[in-house]
Amino acid sequence: MAGDSIGKLFKVTNWGESHGPMLGAVVEGCPAGLTLSVDDIQPALDRRKPGQSKIVSQRKESDIVQIVSGLVDGVTTGTPISLLLQNQDQKSKDYSNIAELFRPSHGDFTYQQKYGIRDVAGGGRTSARVTAASVAAGAIAVKLLAVRHGIKITAWVESVQDIEFKTDPESVTAEQVESNIVRCPDESIAKQMIKRIEQVRKAGDTIGGVVACCVQRVPVGLGEPIYDKLEADLARAMLSINASKGFEIGSGFSGTLMKGSEHNDQFISKEQKIMTASNFSGGIQAGISNGMPINFRVAFKPVATLLQKQKTVNKQGETVDYQVHGRHDPCVLPRAVPIVEAMAALVLCDHSLRHFGTQL
Amino acid sequence: MAGDSIGKLFKVTNWGESHGPMLGAVVEGCPAGLTLSVDDIQPALDRRKPGQSKIVSQRKESDIVQIVSGLVDGVTTGTPISLLLQNQDQKSKDYSNIAELFRPSHGDFTYQQKYGIRDVAGGGRTSARVTAASVAAGAIAVKLLAVRHGIKITAWVESVQDIEFKTDPESVTAEQVESNIVRCPDESIAKQMIKRIEQVRKAGDTIGGVVACCVQRVPVGLGEPIYDKLEADLARAMLSINASKGFEIGSGFSGTLMKGSEHNDQFISKEQKIMTASNFSGGIQAGISNGMPINFRVAFKPVATLLQKQKTVNKQGETVDYQVHGRHDPCVLPRAVPIVEAMAALVLCDHSLRHFGTQL
Amino acid sequence: MAGDSIGKLFKVTNWGESHGPMLGAVVEGCPAGLTLSVDDIQPALDRRKPGQSKIVSQRKESDIVQIVSGLVDGVTTGTPISLLLQNQDQKSKDYSNIAELFRPSHGDFTYQQKYGIRDVAGGGRTSARVTAASVAAGAIAVKLLAVRHGIKITAWVESVQDIEFKTDPESVTAEQVESNIVRCPDESIAKQMIKRIEQVRKAGDTIGGVVACCVQRVPVGLGEPIYDKLEADLARAMLSINASKGFEIGSGFSGTLMKGSEHNDQFISKEQKIMTASNFSGGIQAGISNGMPINFRVAFKPVATLLQKQKTVNKQGETVDYQVHGRHDPCVLPRAVPIVEAMAALVLCDHSLRHFGTQL
Amino acid sequence: MAGDSIGKLFKVTNWGESHGPMLGAVVEGCPAGLTLSVDDIQPALDRRKPGQSKIVSQRKESDIVQIVSGLVDGVTTGTPISLLLQNQDQKSKDYSNIAELFRPSHGDFTYQQKYGIRDVAGGGRTSARVTAASVAAGAIAVKLLAVRHGIKITAWVESVQDIEFKTDPESVTAEQVESNIVRCPDESIAKQMIKRIEQVRKAGDTIGGVVACCVQRVPVGLGEPIYDKLEADLARAMLSINASKGFEIGSGFSGTLMKGSEHNDQFISKEQKIMTASNFSGGIQAGISNGMPINFRVAFKPVATLLQKQKTVNKQGETVDYQVHGRHDPCVLPRAVPIVEAMAALVLCDHSLRHFGTQL
Repeated sequence: MAGDSIGKLFKVTNWGESHGPMLGAVVEGCPAGLTLSVDDIQPALDRRKPGQSKIVSQRKESDIVQIVSGLVDGVTTGTPISLLLQNQDQKSKDYSNIAELFRPSHGDFTYQQKYGIRDVAGGGRTSARVTAASVAAGAIAVKLLAVRHGIKITAWVESVQDIEFKTDPESVTAEQVESNIVRCPDESIAKQMIKRIEQVRKAGDTIGGVVACCVQRVPVGLGEPIYDKLEADLARAMLSINASKGFEIGSGFSGTLMKGSEHNDQFISKEQKIMTASNFSGGIQAGISNGMPINFRVAFKPVATLLQKQKTVNKQGETVDYQVHGRHDPCVLPRAVPIVEAMAALVLCDHSLRHFGTQL
Repeated sequence: MAGDSIGKLFKVTNWGESHGPMLGAVVEGCPAGLTLSVDDIQPALDRRKPGQSKIVSQRKESDIVQIVSGLVDGVTTGTPISLLLQNQDQKSKDYSNIAELFRPSHGDFTYQQKYGIRDVAGGGRTSARVTAASVAAGAIAVKLLAVRHGIKITAWVESVQDIEFKTDPESVTAEQVESNIVRCPDESIAKQMIKRIEQVRKAGDTIGGVVACCVQRVPVGLGEPIYDKLEADLARAMLSINASKGFEIGSGFSGTLMKGSEHNDQFISKEQKIMTASNFSGGIQAGISNGMPINFRVAFKPVATLLQKQKTVNKQGETVDYQVHGRHDPCVLPRAVPIVEAMAALVLCDHSLRHFGTQL
Repeated sequence: MAGDSIGKLFKVTNWGESHGPMLGAVVEGCPAGLTLSVDDIQPALDRRKPGQSKIVSQRKESDIVQIVSGLVDGVTTGTPISLLLQNQDQKSKDYSNIAELFRPSHGDFTYQQKYGIRDVAGGGRTSARVTAASVAAGAIAVKLLAVRHGIKITAWVESVQDIEFKTDPESVTAEQVESNIVRCPDESIAKQMIKRIEQVRKAGDTIGGVVACCVQRVPVGLGEPIYDKLEADLARAMLSINASKGFEIGSGFSGTLMKGSEHNDQFISKEQKIMTASNFSGGIQAGISNGMPINFRVAFKPVATLLQKQKTVNKQGETVDYQVHGRHDPCVLPRAVPIVEAMAALVLCDHSLRHFGTQL
Repeated sequence: MAGDSIGKLFKVTNWGESHGPMLGAVVEGCPAGLTLSVDDIQPALDRRKPGQSKIVSQRKESDIVQIVSGLVDGVTTGTPISLLLQNQDQKSKDYSNIAELFRPSHGDFTYQQKYGIRDVAGGGRTSARVTAASVAAGAIAVKLLAVRHGIKITAWVESVQDIEFKTDPESVTAEQVESNIVRCPDESIAKQMIKRIEQVRKAGDTIGGVVACCVQRVPVGLGEPIYDKLEADLARAMLSINASKGFEIGSGFSGTLMKGSEHNDQFISKEQKIMTASNFSGGIQAGISNGMPINFRVAFKPVATLLQKQKTVNKQGETVDYQVHGRHDPCVLPRAVPIVEAMAALVLCDHSLRHFGTQL
């Protein structure tokens, strides 16, 4: 049973390969009456696209989205919204040398074994290029959440390898994040990160890091226990992103070191609203948003594609050397930021429809 | 849209409240022809049930499971399997004092706001008591995975607060885990953990920790990209467990400190089988199991129920003192072990049916 | 993939066998805040239960429903509602003679082939006894539809074999339907039907007929094109009932004889409301309710269990004679009436939640 | 919750409007390894497209399908297959006169009320043009069923108004059906039907009729009781087709006139295979295919678009005259044949994956 759809009421079906003619997503469940245009979607795609700076892959894709259904005169009609993205910079020949072997920590081996066939060009559907369609769909969710609830989702690069920027999540602004190419809100630490990425790139190696995310102005009530808890669906969405290896909500792993008397978030009344004095819960209690900012972190491993010579096996199980040349991301973090935001938006939007209904 | 079901082909619907007459689960999609009896399920429930040792809640529940449909002469027929668990030790009066206030870091506030009504007795459905039904259903999944693939799932307590036991995940045995009441495979560290839990309990406080899990003999091919990746569904299942705050697969957050050249798992041939020399991937690549052991970790926060006096607000938003007396878990970790195993089994079983088909 | 659940937002999972210890249904998605008790459910079960008159099966079942979760003080909490029905009059010995053969037009052959095993006692899950759980769940839907929209669902026996009662669907009242044991609103025709059923029963044979249904006070907007059209989901629900062979909405098959100029339902304004002058559409246009009464008909074949000697084959494919004795329905129609109403309610309730949201 | 997807394992998501730039479908769940090309799909689209003969709509659409994902070198890879169809002959101006009124028995009123907005051009998504995408997706299902099981699906026009051709369903061949423009297998009756349609067209009126369908070489075991019975899913699929008003399986409504002793299909052994002597069951028993041909019938009402002057109301509820000019189908039956086949294929294919697994 295929797994290319996400969401139950706000549902996205993602299709397309890295080097096929195009990619796309069908968005079902977007309420009628939402003003929507390419301008609502393109900025997120531009933040995700390759070639945007010297520290990301130099593949050239304009990633211009087309909306080919679901609108009348710039307004959604309640019918499926189909989004198309043309692939432009496919270089299938680049990949011919890897058709017979399994690149380490890529999907070559598992796809070959699972399906008995794989799309070698660009990694086919194992490529993070498929996240472009997720980002396009996510941009619709972002808009819907803003219109319905005023929700604001901000992700940023918290760490690149051991270079880390810790801050109050609620203080981070989109402007800070976009003020530099690595998407870390602190200018000085951003510079260190960029320098590290460039060093690693020159060495033909790759590095990982952590993306943090803060969702503000979330209404109380999103999340459906006992299995579709909000943090559970966020975790799933984040772990579905290429190269992600971990997820934490609120206090996360570090919360395991605390005592309950320290960790409990005391309820208080402020401006006639019940809130909590601390937020170790990360904005979710018993699987349901409690109105506080939702804070979570996502770990990304170092990218598997590196330019150094490596050993692996071919289909016959024989050990072979291999080395790739060409375009790759030395560090996925800067481009992961809009992906994390998009996936968070998809989850929150789905839960918004589930709790508040399917009308605008 | 309710969220009380998990799984797409091996589907579990969980129902019941902490202090209602009974709890249960309906398991759909279990293939016909599986030999099944209460004896396959009861041991897992016994490992989860309260009152099993001095370091867990002293609520007395025998948690004897009844199988009331889906079997003929001890063999599954392919029809839904309905499981019932009677509640026995409900003490509704214990909770009358909390009906008008919101306990910190519990679901009182979010349930009240979301549903406009809540079941105060025992926390209703916010109670971890609902995991009993998950564990019962999970035991069926455990059996099915063993019969189909020989899969073995072993979880253990890796840390309690800062007391940690690090080991080779593949070396841990069920016997070691069950050899002590805290379920840490190392006897000496287990003693420290037990001592710490007892200290905390006496202080009326609570602590958290980490459960690690290793799944062995997993066939290649489980997981359905791009959204239903195996690690994504595991993450969702783990974050749906009460009190969990984080999930890591393979190298997890620590993998963000490595370089790609260190982190890539080199493919090798061994006994005519392709495997990897290291396992930073945690047994899953591109969302699909690669045949290596699946290793993951789950963070559990300190339990919210503690016996110290706390401040909170009541429904009117007024600050009030409150203090609970009676039964609670000072540390959820020992009882979380069978829950983690059960939830992992549910996910793997669902993906086994998705990839290998719905027949035994 | 199992098919024992119906509905996407108001979801019912049905479990249990004809001669197991009990049957039941789990209802997910019922909004919080609905007053609900056994008294809302029991009348529908009483109308469906065997032994209620001389023209139905004489199996004795009290069919007393238990609600074992999802309520606090008689009000729904938004959590799953679990319904239990004990089986009382199982006579497993009655069926031992048929374990080795395939009864004609029963599910013996297909279940055996599909699952490799079957529950011979009472036909296991092929028995129409499983509709008891559907009726219990349907009664909750009936109540919810009445509270939300004032919807009224009335089904009746329109024909028994060639004895037919044609009337204006909107004129039929529940009182008329319940005024006689065959559930035909016309007293005189009801008598003929009863007489015919008794004749057929004495001859050890069975007969079928048609149930008509009219749903009144339906709000505009239920139904989700292009595949989950309201009539499509009604058709599915009706064809899932044991022994049903056909479904018509509005003009149905007879509409194929009309011209478009006759069949089109002219829109008119009446009391400031837009409605149609005729209702060949049957209350649904383009898959969405238009506010007019929803009229449909369901065909039921003659029951397969008859007391005459018949020929069939055994598992070895050898021709054998067989004859059953004992309890059976000579005509399923009287008991089908509450089942049709229940299944219609489940569909409408699901679409009500889908269009109007999941809050009461 | 949107309803534009059909199928659980072989899942089709349909998008696009009558007069938008393009239409399409995403097919999820098609197993890897199936040889597939445009040539497998185009013939079905050609049979459905407008302008193919004098008795159908004269809208000119080439309906050339593009496959833009899911294939490598003409073989499916197990990833989503995205199908695109360009619209070419949109004439949006034709419809400007109807923007303010509700055409009788169209979706104008219900869409306007449900969504608060509607796509007037060509009826937007209420147009039967959306079935083009269903037919394209269905052609993949047809191929998969042929490869897996040798299944053959043949539909034909059984009646146009009162002109009827009754025959042994198993005797009808695709060649006979395609031998004339009305798709009735009998040449002489086909001529009468064509003549009738032309008369009706000249009168500016429309007529309906019945499509019959026979599915041969079906394996035993398709269908998932108790709600996803095979006939239930077929009924749903057929009632989702524009203008359909009824569905019968096997004996259908006429079976209600028979006695059980006549209607029961006696099992016999023939060539070491168990089958039934008669087939009133229509190839499905207890919701599961029994290996006999599946026979069903679908009623189609006369098309709502007719060229005569009609009365209706506008958005203000005022009575207005209106008259359309231009292209329409005087009788939908000839073009409904490939749609019925496609929808049947989608249902059967989904159930084939559900029972026999998701691998080729």
